[in-house]
Amino acid sequence: MTTPLAPLSQIPAEIVTVADYISYAQARMTPQAWAYLTGGAADERLLHRNESAYQRYQIWPRVLRDLTAAHTRVSLLGKEYAYPIFLAPVAYQRLAHPEGELATALAAAAMQTPFVVSMQSSTDLAVLAAQAPGPQWLQWYWQPDQQASARLLTQAVQLGVEAIVLTVDAPVNGVRNREQRAQFCLPAGVEAVNLRGFAPQPALVSQAGQSPLFGTGFLQTAPTWAQVAEFIQDCPLPVFLKGILHPGDARQALEIGAAGIVVSNHGGRVLDTAPTPLQALPAVVQAVGASIPVLVDGGIRRGTDVFIALALGAKAVLIGRPYMYGLAAAGAAGVAHVLHILRTELEVTMALAGCHNLDAIQRDCLGDAY
Amino acid sequence: MTTPLAPLSQIPAEIVTVADYISYAQARMTPQAWAYLTGGAADERLLHRNESAYQRYQIWPRVLRDLTAAHTRVSLLGKEYAYPIFLAPVAYQRLAHPEGELATALAAAAMQTPFVVSMQSSTDLAVLAAQAPGPQWLQWYWQPDQQASARLLTQAVQLGVEAIVLTVDAPVNGVRNREQRAQFCLPAGVEAVNLRGFAPQPALVSQAGQSPLFGTGFLQTAPTWAQVAEFIQDCPLPVFLKGILHPGDARQALEIGAAGIVVSNHGGRVLDTAPTPLQALPAVVQAVGASIPVLVDGGIRRGTDVFIALALGAKAVLIGRPYMYGLAAAGAAGVAHVLHILRTELEVTMALAGCHNLDAIQRDCLGDAY
Amino acid sequence: MTTPLAPLSQIPAEIVTVADYISYAQARMTPQAWAYLTGGAADERLLHRNESAYQRYQIWPRVLRDLTAAHTRVSLLGKEYAYPIFLAPVAYQRLAHPEGELATALAAAAMQTPFVVSMQSSTDLAVLAAQAPGPQWLQWYWQPDQQASARLLTQAVQLGVEAIVLTVDAPVNGVRNREQRAQFCLPAGVEAVNLRGFAPQPALVSQAGQSPLFGTGFLQTAPTWAQVAEFIQDCPLPVFLKGILHPGDARQALEIGAAGIVVSNHGGRVLDTAPTPLQALPAVVQAVGASIPVLVDGGIRRGTDVFIALALGAKAVLIGRPYMYGLAAAGAAGVAHVLHILRTELEVTMALAGCHNLDAIQRDCLGDAY
Amino acid sequence: MTTPLAPLSQIPAEIVTVADYISYAQARMTPQAWAYLTGGAADERLLHRNESAYQRYQIWPRVLRDLTAAHTRVSLLGKEYAYPIFLAPVAYQRLAHPEGELATALAAAAMQTPFVVSMQSSTDLAVLAAQAPGPQWLQWYWQPDQQASARLLTQAVQLGVEAIVLTVDAPVNGVRNREQRAQFCLPAGVEAVNLRGFAPQPALVSQAGQSPLFGTGFLQTAPTWAQVAEFIQDCPLPVFLKGILHPGDARQALEIGAAGIVVSNHGGRVLDTAPTPLQALPAVVQAVGASIPVLVDGGIRRGTDVFIALALGAKAVLIGRPYMYGLAAAGAAGVAHVLHILRTELEVTMALAGCHNLDAIQRDCLGDAY
Repeated sequence: MTTPLAPLSQIPAEIVTVADYISYAQARMTPQAWAYLTGGAADERLLHRNESAYQRYQIWPRVLRDLTAAHTRVSLLGKEYAYPIFLAPVAYQRLAHPEGELATALAAAAMQTPFVVSMQSSTDLAVLAAQAPGPQWLQWYWQPDQQASARLLTQAVQLGVEAIVLTVDAPVNGVRNREQRAQFCLPAGVEAVNLRGFAPQPALVSQAGQSPLFGTGFLQTAPTWAQVAEFIQDCPLPVFLKGILHPGDARQALEIGAAGIVVSNHGGRVLDTAPTPLQALPAVVQAVGASIPVLVDGGIRRGTDVFIALALGAKAVLIGRPYMYGLAAAGAAGVAHVLHILRTELEVTMALAGCHNLDAIQRDCLGDAY
Repeated sequence: MTTPLAPLSQIPAEIVTVADYISYAQARMTPQAWAYLTGGAADERLLHRNESAYQRYQIWPRVLRDLTAAHTRVSLLGKEYAYPIFLAPVAYQRLAHPEGELATALAAAAMQTPFVVSMQSSTDLAVLAAQAPGPQWLQWYWQPDQQASARLLTQAVQLGVEAIVLTVDAPVNGVRNREQRAQFCLPAGVEAVNLRGFAPQPALVSQAGQSPLFGTGFLQTAPTWAQVAEFIQDCPLPVFLKGILHPGDARQALEIGAAGIVVSNHGGRVLDTAPTPLQALPAVVQAVGASIPVLVDGGIRRGTDVFIALALGAKAVLIGRPYMYGLAAAGAAGVAHVLHILRTELEVTMALAGCHNLDAIQRDCLGDAY
Repeated sequence: MTTPLAPLSQIPAEIVTVADYISYAQARMTPQAWAYLTGGAADERLLHRNESAYQRYQIWPRVLRDLTAAHTRVSLLGKEYAYPIFLAPVAYQRLAHPEGELATALAAAAMQTPFVVSMQSSTDLAVLAAQAPGPQWLQWYWQPDQQASARLLTQAVQLGVEAIVLTVDAPVNGVRNREQRAQFCLPAGVEAVNLRGFAPQPALVSQAGQSPLFGTGFLQTAPTWAQVAEFIQDCPLPVFLKGILHPGDARQALEIGAAGIVVSNHGGRVLDTAPTPLQALPAVVQAVGASIPVLVDGGIRRGTDVFIALALGAKAVLIGRPYMYGLAAAGAAGVAHVLHILRTELEVTMALAGCHNLDAIQRDCLGDAY
Repeated sequence: MTTPLAPLSQIPAEIVTVADYISYAQARMTPQAWAYLTGGAADERLLHRNESAYQRYQIWPRVLRDLTAAHTRVSLLGKEYAYPIFLAPVAYQRLAHPEGELATALAAAAMQTPFVVSMQSSTDLAVLAAQAPGPQWLQWYWQPDQQASARLLTQAVQLGVEAIVLTVDAPVNGVRNREQRAQFCLPAGVEAVNLRGFAPQPALVSQAGQSPLFGTGFLQTAPTWAQVAEFIQDCPLPVFLKGILHPGDARQALEIGAAGIVVSNHGGRVLDTAPTPLQALPAVVQAVGASIPVLVDGGIRRGTDVFIALALGAKAVLIGRPYMYGLAAAGAAGVAHVLHILRTELEVTMALAGCHNLDAIQRDCLGDAY
């Protein structure tokens, strides 16, 4: 195994799509970090299905419509964003690039789109807020340590964080075999700096012959609807629930006061047999109606994917691996370029589909592929 | 990368299908020209789906019918053509062969079938009309420069052009990544000679952070239904609209006076997620009824494909890449051979399906593949 | 290209299926002969679909039934055959093995199953009848030369031929590109010896620019329903029509007095886009009811395939390429072994499906695969 | 071919799934034994379909449910087992490892799950019972030798065997071509030691031209419903019927007093065109209602597969090849590890699907994949 290359100082002309970034990114990470950041659960079928699900739809070209006033602006929780492509939470970004979350935050600010910072960020929230002026949201895992939680939330409000994105789909880690085979562990110098003050989680260790998960105390610390309802009630910021796929769970999220939903299967990293977000999206949108915004992530690699997600009812999408490829390959410039590629592709798609704004992107813009 | 070979002076015996031409053609073009002429949009899925769509249908063999008076003649806008396989517009054909459009026009004349000359022809219309006596149509992109447009149209009428084929599906170029990666640009000596007198188009340049397409003035020059209606009204020749897939657009084309429709996705070069022409064809035919002829292009590589398109309601088909392969490999002889192959395959198919003329090719001649 | 090997004198232990014969056979034929005997039309999709069509069905295992009196006998046109696997007509079998049709006839006699001799047999009918005592049928292409036809028919009756199998699906050869690329022509010493007295067929030659098939006189000699009706009426033997797929044609075959039907697409050698025989079989069986027997060929490689064809209504099946593989590899012994393999597999399948005879093999023995 | 390696003395860290064991196992067996233990019937399509059938289903993640009291216990015939993953009968396990069935029995005891010992075990039942204290069931092939059968049954009861699993799906061996090509035969020292006192079976030999299976006396010794009904009536232990797929056979099993059913196609080793167990399972469950437990085997490689089988109505599953891989690679430790992997994966799946016990695993936990 060779040493990872240094990040690119200039983006080569042959990188013209998100996928073009992959080989450049892989060459700049250790195999362990690569397995962690890009791997999925079990046989990684969902990882691929998340992407291929988009091929189920076609987009109808519509011709000769007036596009002179076209734009991509979107309103969300009372704020307006320039275009509906946000940066999903990804943990430990310093695994991908020495500047980690700071590079991402700088790119997000330059490209005027929200960055959802992971609770497991390897960069201090205060540093991000100070150096990158763009909109930031904070991803959250429910924690039994109430005091530390309250402290971090208070800090987030003070730093200008706009929203909390509470991840609910991973009470236990998925069976991430690629990561296990690579024997991944965090290298020295990369840690969840914002969690330093929190009480440690119980370890997942069972005795021989005992139930390997249920026989431990591990699930005692997994959150329930009641605990999350309380969290939302106490939280000074709007709370999205991220990782909802079933419409029944979406309805319950609405009932307990969620500000929005992120339809997601955690990038295929938790349950390999789960539905794809795209497949689950329409029923979730129908379940919550127009009450709260529904976002979606997972498998988006093209501007046409963004268009399809919006046509099926998403208000905006989040991308994860795509910008991590850009980050690993070329730092902040790479992240910005990935956003530029997707935004351009979205606009070209809208022009060809005859849609002059996001409201025009409706279900009947799509056909079924064959 | 080696230098392209010279065109063949004789067609080898092992070339017996359209597909057999591909490797011969590729060896005779630069990689840049090859990427431009054969590439498609984005991931090129549509490029392949255009072809594979034909595999959804089967053709019922019917036995022991009287075929003694069989023929393939077709009437279109008051003229009769020997068989329903026309040559689609392809730009800059001198990229494929030194004689470019002239070789194509000579083959079309010899094989008695219409050649739709691209507005971006690298050969002068006047030269084609003078040297090649076959039927010629002219492909057109709507242009903001009204005076130059009128001049070129007038010349076309004088040269005997039979019809205008107005392309409506590309207000902006598709995301043609293969072409971008190859860093294609027109080589010296190849240009759109018939457009020399036209005012130049605005450039597609956006500022950092700005909307990359919508933020520029580019789409100000894209035509609308109103402008095309006016164009048709003023045009001294019948005008086909090419690039229509949605039945709603087909109805509107009929309303504004189009002489015919070409169901097309621009050879998969514009929107990779669009429907295939074959898939879109039946609804377009139903939308316009028998009022105007519907043609189709995209993915036709076999005489059985022609048969299927006709059975689904097309009056004739256009081929693009197939004859470009023939042109690059062997000039006019190659183009003529490609037409001969497809015409022969069509006749064999008709004989085996028990169809003695094109009117006999109906929907019930087809079955659904499994 | 190396010289073909000599036929095997002993069958190796590792040949235990029909497919195992393929590489042994190919090594023992010239590439030209191999292309001719095993190739299909155009892109050879049908060649593969003929086989894969069988994978659409499952066979229900049924347990613990009494199988002590099981057998595979079948009655057809008043005669009883030991099992329902017959040898289909294949032309010019001396391309595959020096003993050609004689080896096949000997194997058929030893294995007690009918051999349908091709009209284009490279061995004299009289020789076959004299040396091989098994049941023989004669495949027939309708010929304009009435006198020679009558002579050959009379000879066939005298030699004990039991039935005529009139091929109706090839008024013109399919577009057999593999064969064309191999530039196949009959080698010296291999010819259609039983057709020596017949007037030659018109050549298929068209002038430049002329209709390549319809413009020639070729189809003037193709038979029609009326001519075939007359042929059946005059024929002293029962006449099967072979090459029927559409139920409408099946009904017409019944009306004009056909003794039976062979559902077939000519082994995928005529129209690459045709339905598979298996797909067409049920509607043909329904169309003719119990009036006349329906046989089927194409794609049968396993005893389970035979079982499926019978469950869908076939009275018996014919195999072509499978026994040609055996013939090329090991002469009569190879043909006999192929029959033995398939017969054994059929019996094992019947035992596992709980069917003690062919009448027990019904549609509800099958399930739909997924 | 190299000599098989010695079994592993320690399980490498890179083995984290069942599939990871395959290459380690293959390197530790002779090609003949490998072909016998892992091969399937004919083209081995069913072998693969057994596994891929599970991909037809998705599992709905459900979030934020209370999992603090979760467990996997299952009651069966009045006994409780820790989790619903049992060891299926596999013959001649000393082909895989020198300790054969004893290693398996030790692992089963340590992991507290039932081991269904094959009647063709290469280790004496008495040895297993003496040395391995876990629950053991005995697989049975109906034998014409009534006295020897009674003796072995009596011994089984004395040794504490809990149930008999009567295999009904193999009155004749499947067409196991891989095994035939490998020319498998039992090596010296591996035999069915528990059958030593039984009268030998008739050989399956037919004369040339004779019916290869039906023409022999072989099927005279195959059991019928009547004989199995009598066997169940006389048997001092509960009798499962194993190898039932059709709901009609399931109903008949219920009528003759079977204690339970194992839906199985014998690991794809008998009839390659049979349905998969997963596909057959729901109709069998519906046919027998809640009267008797339905188990299933075939294709289970992941804890998600176990979950899906339970959601479709199975009370428990049996695994075969998975633990044979473990046995060949690392003896008892390998078998135990395979069980540990699957049990862990099952618990993680239940946690992510919000199911706190097996009763919560219902049909609506699944979605249809696309």
